[in-house]
Amino acid sequence: MKNEVSLVTGAAGFIGSHLVDRLLDSGHRVIGVDNLILGRRANLADAAKNDQFSFVELDVNDVEAGLAFLREETARSPIQTVWHLAANSDIQAGGLDPDVDLRLTFLTTYNVLKLAQTFKIPQIVFASTSAIYGDNDRVLKEDTGPLFPVSNYGAMKLASEGIITAALERFLQRAWICRFPNVVGGRATHGAIFDFIKKLRANPAELEVLGDGLQEKPYLHVRELVDAMLFIFQRSQEKLNCFNIAPEKGASTVRSIAEAVVRAAAPGARIRYTGGSRGWVGDVPRFRYSTEKLKALGWSPKLSSDEAVELAIRENLGRGA
Amino acid sequence: MKNEVSLVTGAAGFIGSHLVDRLLDSGHRVIGVDNLILGRRANLADAAKNDQFSFVELDVNDVEAGLAFLREETARSPIQTVWHLAANSDIQAGGLDPDVDLRLTFLTTYNVLKLAQTFKIPQIVFASTSAIYGDNDRVLKEDTGPLFPVSNYGAMKLASEGIITAALERFLQRAWICRFPNVVGGRATHGAIFDFIKKLRANPAELEVLGDGLQEKPYLHVRELVDAMLFIFQRSQEKLNCFNIAPEKGASTVRSIAEAVVRAAAPGARIRYTGGSRGWVGDVPRFRYSTEKLKALGWSPKLSSDEAVELAIRENLGRGA
Repeated sequence: MKNEVSLVTGAAGFIGSHLVDRLLDSGHRVIGVDNLILGRRANLADAAKNDQFSFVELDVNDVEAGLAFLREETARSPIQTVWHLAANSDIQAGGLDPDVDLRLTFLTTYNVLKLAQTFKIPQIVFASTSAIYGDNDRVLKEDTGPLFPVSNYGAMKLASEGIITAALERFLQRAWICRFPNVVGGRATHGAIFDFIKKLRANPAELEVLGDGLQEKPYLHVRELVDAMLFIFQRSQEKLNCFNIAPEKGASTVRSIAEAVVRAAAPGARIRYTGGSRGWVGDVPRFRYSTEKLKALGWSPKLSSDEAVELAIRENLGRGA
Repeated sequence: MKNEVSLVTGAAGFIGSHLVDRLLDSGHRVIGVDNLILGRRANLADAAKNDQFSFVELDVNDVEAGLAFLREETARSPIQTVWHLAANSDIQAGGLDPDVDLRLTFLTTYNVLKLAQTFKIPQIVFASTSAIYGDNDRVLKEDTGPLFPVSNYGAMKLASEGIITAALERFLQRAWICRFPNVVGGRATHGAIFDFIKKLRANPAELEVLGDGLQEKPYLHVRELVDAMLFIFQRSQEKLNCFNIAPEKGASTVRSIAEAVVRAAAPGARIRYTGGSRGWVGDVPRFRYSTEKLKALGWSPKLSSDEAVELAIRENLGRGA
């Protein structure tokens, strides 16, 4: 891993910034880019102290700017791997306006691949999602079908996977597709914990929860997620490497998350559910991931889904989310 | 079916024009649009004689033009169904320049959905493809995974499926996803038969065949394909209806097609194979479709794959392809 040069898109975002920290710890030289729509420079405060890190504010959909930037960067040393995390992460926003996920979730991948081809970056690690599986009752394995996403976000992540696997036939040497579950932790910019804390700060007496609270999904802590990504990247060396990443022990209901946030942030607040099985258009109310493939590779998380949620609540409260 | 108003995109194309003819025969009023990149007005010669048919040269990616056109059309009578066939059909071209399939294969679907939402068109029938399954040895069922396409064409058809299933959560009432095999017949604009005839006309002494000739795929005649599409549309009325369409009896090798074309067009010509298992980048050398679901619905083709090829050769020669 030493001296390896990695390009991270979405570097100032929630997961991207944790990944940058972890790659630097592992001895990578890291070039971070972010359009700073959702990302924040503050998330890179630690990274900025490391002379192996460089950052530039750049929208990868601005291909001309990307070409100019990478022409200069790759003249110094070639990039081995692009970790492509730039995306819209607000599924609800993409449900209201499909252009959001077209541009931020799919075209970013499309244009990153163009840059990879131009500058001969042979490897890509891609942040995919459970949302590509749609609303499927089965225990989701990496080869589960059909893939009928119910959100534009899921559709544009699926499109990204497809354009990556097609690129493996054309110029890419290797790809890792990491399918994330719900991810929580410090620096989060959206999600149930984040929303609940924000709502309780505005009104400590009552918490409105979208849906009936029975949605149940696996939650993983962001530090465990990036640990898994690095593990998969190092240990799985097929041409195409696709893995679900998730906690092994169960899932957490929205109800249990709401109650935990209330306990920590505004004890005594009343919780009011708006009703309905889905929190919003495109929400998948529950899913179960098989993590057998990742376990067989040798990686398991330490935290259960509920423990990850508890830790994230403490972190998100501490930051003043 | 009588008095139903159908919008067909790609109406002047190979499959689109056969579909128009069939819909008119069934009593639909048909509005055809085509950008005439691959499509030809001549393909609509019969349809043009029918007063239930109207055609306009229109690129559905020109959303402003689409809005203006449909504002006028839907003022006369609402459209029940859009049959979305507009796409790049030249997989090789899309392998050289991914923008081709981004624009013609995916963004057409994306923009057709925008028009459907604006003009409250509740139903879509989509021309999908075996290419979404990628290079998969298994007998391909509608719920087979994983979906790792090896061509940009397959990736952008998969993206189209995903954005359609997401639209079902937002505004669409019903969708039919028809996954085509290799389709042959009159008015074809590409494909092995078309290419071989063209090459033999240029050089009747030798036929160069890309690959080793052992690629083996199911070929369906276009008239049987549109018959299956209408059958599925009428008989399957779930919110989402996804079907493979293919001949039941076997598949045809590229070698057998080359030999049949030589017999019919230039007896005695030498066949020279360029070698390699794939004809081009993104080619899937062989696949097998399960058609159990379609058979259970009650539809079976009359022609075997080889019979469809033989008929198409006669038709393509007759036309002077």
